[in-house]
Amino acid sequence: MRDVFSSTPWYGGDYNPEQWPEQVWDDDVRLMNRAGVNLATVGVFSWSRLEPREGEYDFAWLDHVLDTLHAGEIRVDLATATASPPPWFSRTYPESLPVTADGTRLHPGSRQAYCPSSVAYRTAAARLVRALAERYGRHPALVLWHVNNEYGCHVARCWCDASADAFRQWLRDRYQDIDTLNEAWGTAFWSQRYDSFDEILPPRATPAAPNPTQHLDFDRFSSDELLACYLAEKRILREITPDIPVTTNFMGTFRGADYWKWAPHLDVISDDLYPDPADPDAARTAALARDLMRSLGRGRPWLLMEQSAGAVNWRPSNAPKAPGQMRALSYQAMARGADGILFFQWRQSRKGAEAFHSAMLPHSGTDTRIFREIEELGRELRGLGRVVGTTSTARAALVFDWDSWWAVEQRALPVQSNYLALVAPWHAALTEAGVLVDLVHGDEDLTGYSLVVAPSLFVATDAQIDALDTAARSGATVVVTAQSAILDETLAVRLGGYLGGLQQTLGVWIEEFAPLGGAWQRPGAIPVRDETTRPRTVALTGPVFPDGATGIEWSEVVRPHDAEVRARFTGGPLDGLPALTRRATGPGAAWYLATRLGADDLAVLAGALIEEAGLVTSPVHRGEAHGWVETVRRGDLTFVINHGTAPVDLDLPGVDLLTGHPAGGLRLDPQGVAVVAAA
Amino acid sequence: MRDVFSSTPWYGGDYNPEQWPEQVWDDDVRLMNRAGVNLATVGVFSWSRLEPREGEYDFAWLDHVLDTLHAGEIRVDLATATASPPPWFSRTYPESLPVTADGTRLHPGSRQAYCPSSVAYRTAAARLVRALAERYGRHPALVLWHVNNEYGCHVARCWCDASADAFRQWLRDRYQDIDTLNEAWGTAFWSQRYDSFDEILPPRATPAAPNPTQHLDFDRFSSDELLACYLAEKRILREITPDIPVTTNFMGTFRGADYWKWAPHLDVISDDLYPDPADPDAARTAALARDLMRSLGRGRPWLLMEQSAGAVNWRPSNAPKAPGQMRALSYQAMARGADGILFFQWRQSRKGAEAFHSAMLPHSGTDTRIFREIEELGRELRGLGRVVGTTSTARAALVFDWDSWWAVEQRALPVQSNYLALVAPWHAALTEAGVLVDLVHGDEDLTGYSLVVAPSLFVATDAQIDALDTAARSGATVVVTAQSAILDETLAVRLGGYLGGLQQTLGVWIEEFAPLGGAWQRPGAIPVRDETTRPRTVALTGPVFPDGATGIEWSEVVRPHDAEVRARFTGGPLDGLPALTRRATGPGAAWYLATRLGADDLAVLAGALIEEAGLVTSPVHRGEAHGWVETVRRGDLTFVINHGTAPVDLDLPGVDLLTGHPAGGLRLDPQGVAVVAAA
Amino acid sequence: MRDVFSSTPWYGGDYNPEQWPEQVWDDDVRLMNRAGVNLATVGVFSWSRLEPREGEYDFAWLDHVLDTLHAGEIRVDLATATASPPPWFSRTYPESLPVTADGTRLHPGSRQAYCPSSVAYRTAAARLVRALAERYGRHPALVLWHVNNEYGCHVARCWCDASADAFRQWLRDRYQDIDTLNEAWGTAFWSQRYDSFDEILPPRATPAAPNPTQHLDFDRFSSDELLACYLAEKRILREITPDIPVTTNFMGTFRGADYWKWAPHLDVISDDLYPDPADPDAARTAALARDLMRSLGRGRPWLLMEQSAGAVNWRPSNAPKAPGQMRALSYQAMARGADGILFFQWRQSRKGAEAFHSAMLPHSGTDTRIFREIEELGRELRGLGRVVGTTSTARAALVFDWDSWWAVEQRALPVQSNYLALVAPWHAALTEAGVLVDLVHGDEDLTGYSLVVAPSLFVATDAQIDALDTAARSGATVVVTAQSAILDETLAVRLGGYLGGLQQTLGVWIEEFAPLGGAWQRPGAIPVRDETTRPRTVALTGPVFPDGATGIEWSEVVRPHDAEVRARFTGGPLDGLPALTRRATGPGAAWYLATRLGADDLAVLAGALIEEAGLVTSPVHRGEAHGWVETVRRGDLTFVINHGTAPVDLDLPGVDLLTGHPAGGLRLDPQGVAVVAAA
Repeated sequence: MRDVFSSTPWYGGDYNPEQWPEQVWDDDVRLMNRAGVNLATVGVFSWSRLEPREGEYDFAWLDHVLDTLHAGEIRVDLATATASPPPWFSRTYPESLPVTADGTRLHPGSRQAYCPSSVAYRTAAARLVRALAERYGRHPALVLWHVNNEYGCHVARCWCDASADAFRQWLRDRYQDIDTLNEAWGTAFWSQRYDSFDEILPPRATPAAPNPTQHLDFDRFSSDELLACYLAEKRILREITPDIPVTTNFMGTFRGADYWKWAPHLDVISDDLYPDPADPDAARTAALARDLMRSLGRGRPWLLMEQSAGAVNWRPSNAPKAPGQMRALSYQAMARGADGILFFQWRQSRKGAEAFHSAMLPHSGTDTRIFREIEELGRELRGLGRVVGTTSTARAALVFDWDSWWAVEQRALPVQSNYLALVAPWHAALTEAGVLVDLVHGDEDLTGYSLVVAPSLFVATDAQIDALDTAARSGATVVVTAQSAILDETLAVRLGGYLGGLQQTLGVWIEEFAPLGGAWQRPGAIPVRDETTRPRTVALTGPVFPDGATGIEWSEVVRPHDAEVRARFTGGPLDGLPALTRRATGPGAAWYLATRLGADDLAVLAGALIEEAGLVTSPVHRGEAHGWVETVRRGDLTFVINHGTAPVDLDLPGVDLLTGHPAGGLRLDPQGVAVVAAA
Repeated sequence: MRDVFSSTPWYGGDYNPEQWPEQVWDDDVRLMNRAGVNLATVGVFSWSRLEPREGEYDFAWLDHVLDTLHAGEIRVDLATATASPPPWFSRTYPESLPVTADGTRLHPGSRQAYCPSSVAYRTAAARLVRALAERYGRHPALVLWHVNNEYGCHVARCWCDASADAFRQWLRDRYQDIDTLNEAWGTAFWSQRYDSFDEILPPRATPAAPNPTQHLDFDRFSSDELLACYLAEKRILREITPDIPVTTNFMGTFRGADYWKWAPHLDVISDDLYPDPADPDAARTAALARDLMRSLGRGRPWLLMEQSAGAVNWRPSNAPKAPGQMRALSYQAMARGADGILFFQWRQSRKGAEAFHSAMLPHSGTDTRIFREIEELGRELRGLGRVVGTTSTARAALVFDWDSWWAVEQRALPVQSNYLALVAPWHAALTEAGVLVDLVHGDEDLTGYSLVVAPSLFVATDAQIDALDTAARSGATVVVTAQSAILDETLAVRLGGYLGGLQQTLGVWIEEFAPLGGAWQRPGAIPVRDETTRPRTVALTGPVFPDGATGIEWSEVVRPHDAEVRARFTGGPLDGLPALTRRATGPGAAWYLATRLGADDLAVLAGALIEEAGLVTSPVHRGEAHGWVETVRRGDLTFVINHGTAPVDLDLPGVDLLTGHPAGGLRLDPQGVAVVAAA
Repeated sequence: MRDVFSSTPWYGGDYNPEQWPEQVWDDDVRLMNRAGVNLATVGVFSWSRLEPREGEYDFAWLDHVLDTLHAGEIRVDLATATASPPPWFSRTYPESLPVTADGTRLHPGSRQAYCPSSVAYRTAAARLVRALAERYGRHPALVLWHVNNEYGCHVARCWCDASADAFRQWLRDRYQDIDTLNEAWGTAFWSQRYDSFDEILPPRATPAAPNPTQHLDFDRFSSDELLACYLAEKRILREITPDIPVTTNFMGTFRGADYWKWAPHLDVISDDLYPDPADPDAARTAALARDLMRSLGRGRPWLLMEQSAGAVNWRPSNAPKAPGQMRALSYQAMARGADGILFFQWRQSRKGAEAFHSAMLPHSGTDTRIFREIEELGRELRGLGRVVGTTSTARAALVFDWDSWWAVEQRALPVQSNYLALVAPWHAALTEAGVLVDLVHGDEDLTGYSLVVAPSLFVATDAQIDALDTAARSGATVVVTAQSAILDETLAVRLGGYLGGLQQTLGVWIEEFAPLGGAWQRPGAIPVRDETTRPRTVALTGPVFPDGATGIEWSEVVRPHDAEVRARFTGGPLDGLPALTRRATGPGAAWYLATRLGADDLAVLAGALIEEAGLVTSPVHRGEAHGWVETVRRGDLTFVINHGTAPVDLDLPGVDLLTGHPAGGLRLDPQGVAVVAAA
């Protein structure tokens, strides 16, 4: 198969010429050339134009588009156009429309109005993909197949009858016989025992909390159904064009699909990411998504398939990117493994639901800050061929697990949790300290890492437990946090103190959970007097925290049997009990944190762990930064990005590839970037 | 046709005698006479009593009611009783029940449970109207037909299959062929191209944001469908009683129906308005509605068809009107053009969903503050025949546009907006300064006005743009604010800097929007650390604002090519860029405001504009008022109403018609009113 | 019939052995014996195990369970297992699934997925109950039948077609002819007149507020339907086992069912109660539920059927019970009449939706605080046989009325109210002062009470009014608060000043309501300027409140004709008007409070009323308590429970049964308990 990457980074975006008269197309190519665009994603939402009536195809316009691009030396990432069926399709096959858990049928008129399990949809999609592959498989502009678009972004779950049928078949495949399912789901509880697979439904609206394992299996099934849609298209493409790589665009830390299961099937990982410019954490959470993409590809370069040039249009208030912010975030992606920077979209739409989503070429034309920044970045990227294909090595790993995500956000748990809010702060704490972090599923060989953090690994398989234990025994510093290994993969509680085999690794067991309440003023509570609620925090003291620390939302009764206590709860019902423990595991160590920490306290703890793991990094600038100065090593290059609010002066050897100046003494303004090659 | 108004203002209210035993009726007329009532609205919700079974009418009771009222010299505004079909109707024609966007069918048991497009409903309503017109068309008490009631107050939109059919027909009428519709709606986006009108649906629940133009057309269609219901009834009434005027009761600034399209079809404009007595802005927003009613009738007197004597019962907490507040608000209506003051309702219900809605005659009877105030107002109005039929002339105009309202509140825009919150403060600022304001649609001849304000005219037709330009060139001061003329009437973006032809009028174009964010703590955001959000405001400086000013929620990059900058953004990402511009247009001027202002800053700006337009008014009282002292000139009378919290001493020539005292030196207590005739 | 209570208090909980392998069962009995368990509730959710396919029963496992328990000398409360039909049932009878007001059908997969009016459900349930009764009716372990479980906890209302049929039949029975219903419901309003019962529907989703009386009748009907389910099962049990008592577990102050109508049909009252340990009011609101249970049984001992050993799992954050709190709340139940303390559940589940609900035997086993506290309490209870069967006498009564609850929380009222927030503070104020309070329906003979409080008795029958009047004339201090006797039982307003006959009792009538607004910033309000809202409180002054007091949310215009004013509103629109009145009724007195009070002000008022009624109690401890020291007399014992945050030193004669020490000088730590027998 051909390599999707060539000698310079890809640069470009979604290109939807069918929204414009043909006379605009030549202007597009001229301006693309001016901006340095070398890749265009075409046809993402073209189904209704390509097949205006069932079985009648109209390819002439697309022939013209591809030829025009090719003439302009712009390569094409050709979409299979199956992301949104045309109106005639839903009218002919109304049973293909998705249905929500409460039985509401979703209708056409926006996009993605199809049930992933619909046979009619899959049949129609396959026919279209075959027609496209046969017509364009040998087109000289074609370098990449773009299957569908953002699978599941609006309809990641469907509860219709066809989905119910498919779910039952998926369960038959998984459990073989109904008794095995009854045992796995614990249907003895609440009189839920099934006598046959035919009785099972998706977790539709129910009077009370649904069966947790049914719910988790439905999450797994739904991810698999979307993946099956992808694989069906990929099979056709591979058959007809075995040498053209195939991708579909991921969406960062997307809850709807378990990307660990998807990633092996993508020839190149690609990602769409839209950090909120008004969110001060934007760069931090974006870094998590970039690291995830690199990790999904097991270190291979990936493609930033979509980002915005300026504002998006789907938040309550859509701030534009600040001057330079688009560039800074683009280099962040590249620093963390991207070999291409693309946008949604090339020319800003004049109509439709994304007319107010920014584009490379704004409504107001080329005499705009946005277009100038687009041109500037295009110019720079042409000089960065040296980056393409290089890789990084991380010595820290963070366990990221969709089963735990889905399970820890269910109802009927000790506390309502937001998985990303449990995981992302750990990534941010390590990343801000300059440590490059791989995301891992947790059951791989982890012995190559010096530091492994498993935050709230709520559902832990024995394989994950073993891998963590092996890492600790092999010399890594392993950190496990509250709400980990409470359940196995069938959501059976790990009895006798939770944690399963990690009890030995960590040297503790857990007697009881003690969420920090405070939520008693819930609907339905009877107010008698206006007293203060119990605090939702608890103080911590211990040598790790010289200034003390504060636990948030969660505490628990930890019973150490073979661990040192490094911090204790102080005051409150758990006064004096362990909050942070450490067990030496020969060359390594296994830590357990029995609460959540805010960013500042987490930075202190992360600092201690980084030091223990021998990962201390040297600063790249002089003086104090006002905000985060991101530093990432990729290949032999060091990317430095100033996300702060004041300039910093670089203090590292080498030459900045962007300016040609020595890096030492270079001043980076806010949003400023340097790509430093060792001298 | 007879004039609905006679020599004294109308006074009365909804009268629902069918809720009471007949022995109460004589008592009603006796007390109505005591209170000065001269008009009763009868039969609004009588369908189930008038037609207890399909096709069987029972008019005897209504004969009795009308004769009793006539004997008491009380005139009748007779309702067509079609506002709420009886239970037998929905049981016989269940397909007539309305359906929400998510497919929920609404059931009978409250009121207005019908789809406006239902053929069964329209047929049954027409039959009833004909029967009523034939029986009562010559009744001597009859002075006005009251069609239906508050069209669309609960069911302004219906998504059922009958509505879908009617919507398709409406679209066929509007666009003639499907390609024209595809072009207008921009269906090339998101694969929405329609192959025939048969494929189109109302904007039911969809996976993502629906097509914006489809959505706007559905709003227009829905308003037209309600209007069609009205016109069908009116046609019958006109045929049988050509000399009896016809109305239906509007609801102030009601989002559901484009009253500009309705108003020409009403022989007299009438309005229902229920300002919240606990809302300190109540009088201000009420003034907007009154001015709208006068403007809908192009200056003709109108009828306050419904207000409350005290509290309503549909807010979370329903404060009563303060002593005198009902009277003050009644005179406000009269000052702004009303020639009649009516209430919902005469006698407070003993049962049903409005039993706790106040009435002229309360549950607790006549020994009550409310009944005493009702008597007092009735007595006063009998002495105000001089007001009837007089008109006012406004020199300021405010553009008010339903298309912009509907469009600017859609999803998928730069910011989520509340149209009334963008428009009402402008009305309040001018009104509080003593300037009488007409509301205009914006495409009329505006050259008669000295000041024209177009706040957030999001959807602007070329005709509206031309009328604003002509006004500015003819000498008016024209003010356009942010989010205006972004779109044309098909919701196509006005490319190349937005504003369309107003770029020439204003001398600016817009490069980029910059909403002031701050909403990043939305659902789904990943918290990493607790930093402060970006501020949602921005400072302004410039000669118009000697003390500075604060922009709210919105800013944008304005590019002046032929305008002076009168204020600039200070600090933040738009530091130094224009916030307020002015272009001299020969005798007039065209201002552009690129943000929103709070009430105090808006008052400063409005003051400057009023002065420029030569509209400065003289004070009517001595010293400082503690709150708003409303002053309105109607005919040769000046109405002064003290909405403040402390007395004021009048300082204007003439005689107060209410007291007979000279106006100069008259003290108005809070809620006090004077109607001053020039000496 | 046998008495369910024996010589020692019952102790135990729900036991669900079918969730565990048989080898665990012997261990269960061993540990139950160790913990002092003598009663187990078996089979609550066993339907799918007992009848795995329609008509096929499998009793062998249950035989084994009962025999095992019996061998361990543990008695059995056998459930009828009808609380949750198996999956095969809903698949065979899909029309039995419940439907919400908006038409959403609820599906199986959790629990209680049946419509209470479903014939299929009732038939299947009856068949199962008969089979169980025939098989186990003579089992020597059986002491109590436990019908269903928490009737209505998830599905208290169903709007399906079967429910509609049943509702119509219920209405036919109640009203006999349609004209009577039309009159009762006030259907002349809003054109709702019914021509036949066939036209009536349950109050499904409607465009506007539904008919209030229809809504109330639907609440009554729904409670009756659930009761009919219970009675159908009870009839079978009584027929087959006439000597075994029958219960079903109530849920404290549960809105869904009118327990006054249910209570006479329970041989023993039993209750499930889960106070939130993070709620500082937990003990206070729990005391209300305990007193309700004692009162429902007209003073007879009752059974605490379910409580939690630690945390629950259905709140947003589930704090555990503090050390000692489970014991303290258990003794509270006993002090207020319970003769048994049971838990949900014995062994904490490993799977399913309640795996994180605590149990007597936690996930982490016996080396846990929870199990130690369970053992300790079991040991203590064995020594408290002296308590069993004793009763208390209360001299204060609080009117608690489901009709008022349902009605005062409807839409379209003067203010949106929370009935429990109106009633519970009165119970707390009296209880904290050491006064034992009976709950009464209000139409009983109340002359035995010295103090009767009727808070917000919104719907008052003539019988209730007469009983309150008789009590006042017989010497009681009667207190009526705002929003009482506004409506009769058909929800007809009591005209002419509200209050009905209580006008004579109280010597006042009400002219007008004046809710304290403040809620004007509701959705849809048009903001013009940012002014402060009107305050939601009003000051009170008068001799009862030496330091003044504050009225909350509500005020009204009270017109005394035969009452002294004891406090007045000060400031605001009702300045100087009466807020609290008292009428001497010969030996007694009738008070009226025209607002709501916070806890501190209510304590002052309650103190005055307690003194007037001659109910002053002497303190049981020295010095000031930091929190509530609960004191309850039952039989000849005094229970003292320290719910505060600091120790108290007892100061009363007698001996503490728990320690054997003299009570005088005994120190009670927080959560500490003493059961003091007079010396």
